[in-house]
Amino acid sequence: MLTKTDYIIRQLARAEKKKYENYVVTRIWHLLDNQNVKIVTQQYVSRPEGRAMTDLFFPQLGMHIEVDEKQHFNSLGERVAHDNVREADIINATNHEILRVKVAEESIDAINRQVDEVLMRIREKIKSVQPVWDFDADFNPATYIAKGKIAVDENVAFRTVVDTLCCFGRPPKSIQRGFVKHPKEDRMIWFPRLFLNKDWDNRLSYDEEEISERKLSGHDEFFKEKISDAKHQKERLVFARVKSNLGDVMYRFKGVYKLDVLLSLARNESVYKRVAKEVTTYATST
Amino acid sequence: MLTKTDYIIRQLARAEKKKYENYVVTRIWHLLDNQNVKIVTQQYVSRPEGRAMTDLFFPQLGMHIEVDEKQHFNSLGERVAHDNVREADIINATNHEILRVKVAEESIDAINRQVDEVLMRIREKIKSVQPVWDFDADFNPATYIAKGKIAVDENVAFRTVVDTLCCFGRPPKSIQRGFVKHPKEDRMIWFPRLFLNKDWDNRLSYDEEEISERKLSGHDEFFKEKISDAKHQKERLVFARVKSNLGDVMYRFKGVYKLDVLLSLARNESVYKRVAKEVTTYATST
Repeated sequence: MLTKTDYIIRQLARAEKKKYENYVVTRIWHLLDNQNVKIVTQQYVSRPEGRAMTDLFFPQLGMHIEVDEKQHFNSLGERVAHDNVREADIINATNHEILRVKVAEESIDAINRQVDEVLMRIREKIKSVQPVWDFDADFNPATYIAKGKIAVDENVAFRTVVDTLCCFGRPPKSIQRGFVKHPKEDRMIWFPRLFLNKDWDNRLSYDEEEISERKLSGHDEFFKEKISDAKHQKERLVFARVKSNLGDVMYRFKGVYKLDVLLSLARNESVYKRVAKEVTTYATST
Repeated sequence: MLTKTDYIIRQLARAEKKKYENYVVTRIWHLLDNQNVKIVTQQYVSRPEGRAMTDLFFPQLGMHIEVDEKQHFNSLGERVAHDNVREADIINATNHEILRVKVAEESIDAINRQVDEVLMRIREKIKSVQPVWDFDADFNPATYIAKGKIAVDENVAFRTVVDTLCCFGRPPKSIQRGFVKHPKEDRMIWFPRLFLNKDWDNRLSYDEEEISERKLSGHDEFFKEKISDAKHQKERLVFARVKSNLGDVMYRFKGVYKLDVLLSLARNESVYKRVAKEVTTYATST
């Protein structure tokens, strides 16, 4: 079982080739010296203008650090083109703050000064947010049952389908299917892979407002059923199956989506539009 | 040309697989936050009891940090058996202080507490040594000409044979041979590879008091000349050709050695014994 210690150590040791990035990221962590601030390194983010990877992400603060190793700033989008992001956990970073540290041709003093400025900004944010990082609570359904809700902005992910269903009144037992009835509401719960995989050509738009779905073999038949079957018209809570930056499978909450039948017919593929960014949780009934 | 900035960044980014080591080493550097303290990571050391690698070395302070990732402390010697140390720069660590940080099964708090203790000890040492790290001066012959001497305990190395000879009154011109006359003294200057290579089976004892040399092909003829030729009887300043931990070739001062003829005859190989650990430098005459 991953401990908070292992998690922190592994997050900070990830940058194998990016020497400057590693220097900046470790400097921020060690000088901040605050274990109530959660960190994620090399986090993929989705923004209206495209996908990107940031070097250090503070989920509780909605802040990212970008270490610019090249002389010219890369647009966020550029950096991701060459990376394999298919399975990656991509979190929505709209409204997040992005701080940059320029390292190309900078002296160690100049880098350290920039880190000092970044630290000041992070500490200000900490003062207003007052974060508490309870490592085990982050992935625990009980945390969200107690809160009464799960919101997209809180970047919620679970380790298993069973853990996810535990938030919606379902007793924990093994679930084989990726599309199940919501135990308490007239909705469905969906655990899709939102990228091209062996069975599906699925996509999530950069702003995460739209999911498109196309079956690679037998599309016509599947699509006909999709458009006519009532259960597919129901709203669906979407927990996307992703891999964390440490390689673990997770189910990341993306919101509530609903099939747009007219748009689907026009495009000859299933198109879902987001209708809500927050859902109610329920204690598990046994 | 390697700058101090590049050097620090590269030293701190070296631990690719050793996550805990990377955490401890970067924490010490960032919290110490003192650019007058020179660091070398993953430094091979030679001690009377054997060879070893330490995770962080402070040459000016004569201090090493060992991060113990395994539950049981490794003897220093054990760690090196599996590493390829042939070409490595191995510095003499007799009388050096070795501080250990235990990370196996330790929480991040426990690791941080150990680092705090290590930092206290380092800061005490800094107070007494008052180090100044002038990056460019370290490899500059002028530094040692000004000092009037080069001593083994100062861990002196040069980037080129020409730089080395500049310390002994020789005008800098390209030198092809690895064994040249001392311009000012009735001694020789030798730049050997002190490990098994394609031409030679050379060895340096762990305590660095003895060098043995054996030519791989044509040994008998070479050995006969060695024993009889007067120039081989002369004392020789030894600058061993090594590779630094960043992969650069360097010439590391090991001391003054003299052929021990009786021992050589008894062992049928050239055996040199160290006769001095310090040599005089001379301004370059042009």
